[in-house]
Parts: sequence; C-alpha cells; structure tokens
Amino acid sequence: MDFFRVKSTEEMSEIIDAHVQRLTYAESVSPDHAAGRVLYEDVHATEDVPGFSRSTVDGYAVKAMDTHGATEAMPAFLSLAGSIEMGQEAAMVLDMDQAVYVPTGAMIPEGADAVVMIEDADLSGDLVQVFKPVRHQENVILKGEDTQAGSAVLTAGTEIRPQEAGALAALGLSSITVCKKPVVGYLSSGDEIVPYAKQELKMGEIRDVNGVTIPSLIRSWGCDVVVSPIAADDRQDFQEKANRLFEQCDMIIMSGGSSVGEKDYTTEVIESLGNGTPGLLVHGVSVKPGKPTILSVTSAKPVLGLPGHPASAMVIFHMFGKQIIHRLLGMNRGNRHTTVARVSQNIPSSPGRTDYIRVTLKSGTPYSEAEPVLGKSGLISTLIKSDGLMEIPSRKEGVQKGDLVKVHYFI
Amino acid sequence: MDFFRVKSTEEMSEIIDAHVQRLTYAESVSPDHAAGRVLYEDVHATEDVPGFSRSTVDGYAVKAMDTHGATEAMPAFLSLAGSIEMGQEAAMVLDMDQAVYVPTGAMIPEGADAVVMIEDADLSGDLVQVFKPVRHQENVILKGEDTQAGSAVLTAGTEIRPQEAGALAALGLSSITVCKKPVVGYLSSGDEIVPYAKQELKMGEIRDVNGVTIPSLIRSWGCDVVVSPIAADDRQDFQEKANRLFEQCDMIIMSGGSSVGEKDYTTEVIESLGNGTPGLLVHGVSVKPGKPTILSVTSAKPVLGLPGHPASAMVIFHMFGKQIIHRLLGMNRGNRHTTVARVSQNIPSSPGRTDYIRVTLKSGTPYSEAEPVLGKSGLISTLIKSDGLMEIPSRKEGVQKGDLVKVHYFI
Repeated sequence: MDFFRVKSTEEMSEIIDAHVQRLTYAESVSPDHAAGRVLYEDVHATEDVPGFSRSTVDGYAVKAMDTHGATEAMPAFLSLAGSIEMGQEAAMVLDMDQAVYVPTGAMIPEGADAVVMIEDADLSGDLVQVFKPVRHQENVILKGEDTQAGSAVLTAGTEIRPQEAGALAALGLSSITVCKKPVVGYLSSGDEIVPYAKQELKMGEIRDVNGVTIPSLIRSWGCDVVVSPIAADDRQDFQEKANRLFEQCDMIIMSGGSSVGEKDYTTEVIESLGNGTPGLLVHGVSVKPGKPTILSVTSAKPVLGLPGHPASAMVIFHMFGKQIIHRLLGMNRGNRHTTVARVSQNIPSSPGRTDYIRVTLKSGTPYSEAEPVLGKSGLISTLIKSDGLMEIPSRKEGVQKGDLVKVHYFI
Repeated sequence: MDFFRVKSTEEMSEIIDAHVQRLTYAESVSPDHAAGRVLYEDVHATEDVPGFSRSTVDGYAVKAMDTHGATEAMPAFLSLAGSIEMGQEAAMVLDMDQAVYVPTGAMIPEGADAVVMIEDADLSGDLVQVFKPVRHQENVILKGEDTQAGSAVLTAGTEIRPQEAGALAALGLSSITVCKKPVVGYLSSGDEIVPYAKQELKMGEIRDVNGVTIPSLIRSWGCDVVVSPIAADDRQDFQEKANRLFEQCDMIIMSGGSSVGEKDYTTEVIESLGNGTPGLLVHGVSVKPGKPTILSVTSAKPVLGLPGHPASAMVIFHMFGKQIIHRLLGMNRGNRHTTVARVSQNIPSSPGRTDYIRVTLKSGTPYSEAEPVLGKSGLISTLIKSDGLMEIPSRKEGVQKGDLVKVHYFI
C-alpha cells in the first residue's frame, strides 16, 4: 500500500478546489420551486423593477418642495387633484401646489417626487393640509430602483434562497436554468454492518448508522442520493458495488474500511475506478476526529472515503463533503454559517492538527458559551447534544477557558 | 376599525407562545427519511447501543494492566490468543498476558478492557510486543455507552437532524412518529398584484414577489403550502379566498392590505374567520421594517397578516412566522442560528422599537464585520445582498461603529 503524507485541513481544502469541477448538467425550474437550487447561468434583467415609480405608503403624492417648512401649526395647503387607484396608470401630470391621493404600491403621477403619509395630512373637501415636510424621493420607490434593465441581477453559481427566487419572479422569469442536482452514491462496508432495520442483532453486529446520517446530509444539501446495499469485507463484493455506484453517480462516498486493517481493500478499489486521473489525492488528513479520510478524483468524479465511526464520519462530511458538493454545483459562496463563542473550559490540542470539538451553545450576550460535549468519536449520542463544531486551528496548542472560538453550525 | 396598542417584539413573541398550540396530527416515517421532521413522542431505547463492547481501532485487545510501563525500549510481551473477525462473536475469554487481534468495530472478548493500536505493537509468530501502555477502557466503546436500554434518547418536539435520524436508526427503529407537516395557506391581495409569470405588465401592475418568497420559506421550514390565487381589492373576493384557505389549512399568511388604506378589509376578513376565539391579538408591532403586522388566532389556527413590501414581509416572516411554525410543530428548540459581529458604521434607531437591519457579513477573526445593506424596505435587491438580519433591541438608540451586534442568519 502506498503511504501518503498526511495532509493538513488547508491542503485538503485546496486539493478539493483544484480538482473538483462543476458538473455540466443543467435543468429548468420555475421561480416558486427554485429555492435550494444553484443558478447555472448569469441572469440579466430584461426590464426595470419596479416598472414605474410608486408609493411605499398610503398618502398624498406631492412635489416635495411644496411641503418645505410645513408644521402642525403652519401646514402647507395643497389642492387635491384626484386619486390614483391601485394597479392603475397615473395618467395625469401633477402641478405645483397639487396633491393626489395614492395608496401603498400605487403609481405616482408624473411631476410628483415624494409622498406625504396620510397620518401627516388632513383632507377637508378638496383641500389637503400637510403638517410635516417630505424630502425629494421620500416614501417613493423609483422606476428601476430595485433592478435596472440590462443589469446582471444574479451570477452563475449563486445559491437560490427564497429572496433570490423572489427577485427572479420580480423579473417575470417563468423558467430558471439551475444546476442539475448531483447524484451522490453512498456505500457502507464491513461484515459487522447490518441494515438499520434489522431487529435481533447477533453478537458483533452493528446497525448501519452512517447509511442514514450521510445520505440525510447529502439530501439536505440539495443532491439526490443512491444508497448501495452494504458491502461485505470481501474484495469482489466491494468492487462490484463500488463499480455499480460509480457508473450511476457523479460522486461516491464510502464509509468504513479506511484505516489500516488487514482486510482493507478500500484504497485498491478506489484506485481501480474510472480513468484513474488525477487519482488518489489524499490518504489521511491531520484532523481529529477523522484522520483516516481518503479523497480521489477519477474521470472527474470525486470519491471520498470516510472513517467508519458515525461521529467522525459526520464531522469529515460536514467539513469536506459539503465543500466537494459545493464545487460540483459550482457554488460561489461557501459555508458561512459560523458563530463566535466563548469556550467554557481549557481544551488541549496537538499543534499541526485541526480539531473539531462537538459543542453545545448556551446563549449569552454578546457571546454564546461553547461547552464541549464529551464522549468518544464513535458515539452518536455526542452529536445529538451538539449544536455545532468548534474549530481549534492546527497552529494552536489548544484553547483556554474564556477564549473566543469559531463554531460551525450543523447546517 | 379597532386600533390596538402597537406591541413590542417581545410581547409579539410571548403572545405567539401563549396562543399557538401544537397540532395534534402525527404520521410515521422511516429514519432515513426523518431528517427535517419533528418528533411527536419521546423515544426510549429498547436495547443497549452498542449491544456489545467493541474496539474503536485496529489492534490488540488486552488487559490494560498488562501494558503498564511498556516503552519502545522495554515492550510488554503478550501471547497472541487468536483474532476476532468483524461481525463475529468473541466467544473466548482473555487471560492475563494474552492479546487478541481485533479490527475496528469488532467485539472485544470478555476479560479485555482496552485495545492497543496496531501501530503501537509488533507481531512475530505468536508473540505480541506492545510499545506503549493503554489505559483502562482506552480505544474501546462499552456496551450501552452510547445509549442504555430504557433511557429516553430523544424527547417529543426534537427537530430530527441527520444525527438524530442516525441515533434512531442505531436503535433499530424502522418507523418514527413525527408531527404531520403543517399545511400553511398563503394569500396575496391587491388590484396591482399580478401572477409573477405575467409577461407584459400594464402600468401600475406589480408581480407577486411575496407569493414566491414566503411559500419558499414555508417549504424550507418543513411545511406544506397551499398558495391561493391573488385576491382583488374587493371585500367579497378576498373573503371567499380567505375562507377557502382557512378550511384547508392549519395556518394562514396574508400579504398586502395591512396598512391603513381606504380599501383595507384585511382586519374585517381576519375577524370573520373561524370561531373568533381568542381572535385578533396584534395589530401593529413596534419593529422596523414591518410595523403593520397582524396576528390573530381563531379556531386554533394562527392567521398572520404581513406587510406588502417584499423585504418587510420576509423580515417579519423570519422573525415571527418561523416562531409560529415552530409552535405548530411543538418544537422544543428555537431559532439558534445567530452570530456575533462588529458593525461597520453608526446606525441610529428609535428607542422603543426593534430594528432588523439587513447586513452582509465579511469574515474576520474573531468576528465577522456586519455591513448594513442600504436600500428601501420595498427593494428585493437589498435581501439578495444580505447574509442575515442585525438586531438593534428596542432599549437601544442605535449602534456605534465597532459595537458587537447579534445577527440572525437567513435559515
């Protein structure tokens, strides 16, 4: 077996960025089903949004200068020149010392440049008294103020959140080109691993927890999943199952068999897949938990070997699996869901190794307190108690009680 | 029209907690499709997890005391008494000065209480040399260490993340009782509002952006959505569409028509729905943006009236709509996805009002910088540039450049 130098987490990240490329499949969705997807192409506005200048309040469209100096005691007097209905064109032109009633969202007439709120005015007959001045453009959204025709609204690689979906709808787009969901294959291996639904376990058997946690994460990150039947500790069975997944999927995740055991075919099988270029890139990452992590890219498909312990597997998949998926989707923003917290106790760490410590966050002002969840990396119960992962960078020899630390949320 | 005293955000929150109750519908899902759902009942372990003591490394199961004092120069000598295969029962009992080979995850034999890593030992013939001592229970997970039979593993109201799904799978549960997804009805109203896919807009018309952003958020928070056709500014049309949604749904969201306009039937229609108990609870919240927010609970169904501006509607729905949905699901953890950041400039605010300012987060150590996204509340483009909402509590008169502030992520 080929022993690689163990990579730092920074090197692992750089290798992923250098070798995992965006998938070249796209498909169309409507804006109301676009949230959670990633834009495949830049989107340019074909029209101004809004398409006309409109009021943001219920009130009177005016020329702002006509209200200058108005007070409760000395109101400005304007003449009511009509009212504009919601959804109607303002066909008139406003003259000096005139006001026109407009509800929220209605078009303001040409000649008007501000709207006096209804609470700041009184109407008697055709006379509008204004008790408070408005500034030029106050309570008005101008034509094209949200988006100007021709401008780039969103760029390829943008994650479509509900607000981006709304912006696409505002442009009148009925079909958006998004990246196809990557199809990610998942394979657990090991003679001791049995399907989770098996009831009476024989001594030595373990239910397949990673086969539930990892596919659940993959789905929550916007991919489709193919879960293989569990492979036995048998080279041929493992190879066949891996081959089958590799044909169907854009990426493969394997769990188990990545430490230095007697029956470890994982590396050999990974090296046999695809065209072997660039091939095995990482065999071991200087990270705790999760050192026995493997990364290969072959025929443009990433293959990630996770450690078998459920908590280690989830930590590695959070920190690197997510990055790989983001690369496949061509996403231009990374994982930004972190917070700063004060750590509740001293935690030692080895320099040269990045530690991800499971923590519970207890809210406080301004910082939450990060309290380590103690327990072995194999214990799924430690993950249940955790709100996120505290990072101890490799250059540090641990953290002291009260230090500010970075915490990655589990999302 | 009945004018209520405007409520503070804290009062709004308390009113939601006091008047919105958990839905009483449940359904069954398998652990591999449980992520994103909420537990309806407590879950107790029916067996120990793991069901046997096992090794967390590849190595030699030993009595820890037999390795005390071992060094590279002065190894401990043990006799190899066999090896245990993955997934097999360890039928033997380990004697003093014996070692048994175990791969990661395999059962350790009775009498062994620790495992020496393979890297810390050498095998020649039947002789195992151990170069490093192990402590009692080192590299071992004990029977029941993750979960003990009979213990409460997860309580009703727990959000099932991938790790909770894994813990349920570890217990061999094939069916989990979760809260049924709430069915949330959404209704936009206004003569000027047209379906987003309409191509050539007439002057004064506006595409229905809230009808995309709000349903997208509802779905992302684990609910089903029924989107009504847009209601005209016509009492009868509005009433009929609201009635239809109210019959079908567990909660209704309305957008538009919640400020003090001439054609504002929203409050009347809301008061006409259901049994009217407890009825209209909030008419105006002291918050910017989003003051004209309405909350009613009638026949146990919450009805939330959102402001019409897309950005205001999203802010209110994030801060309160999510809380209402969490209550309907009976969730026992709230929105915890916040961070602390340094604000990049002075921002004034009125005391007595809570402000939610859209911000971009620029990463830094230890804090990110929160930079306000400037722009009117009607502009959807301001939300696209934002990573989250900075909170200025009502007791404050704004924040100063460099202050630490709380930022709610958009998730």
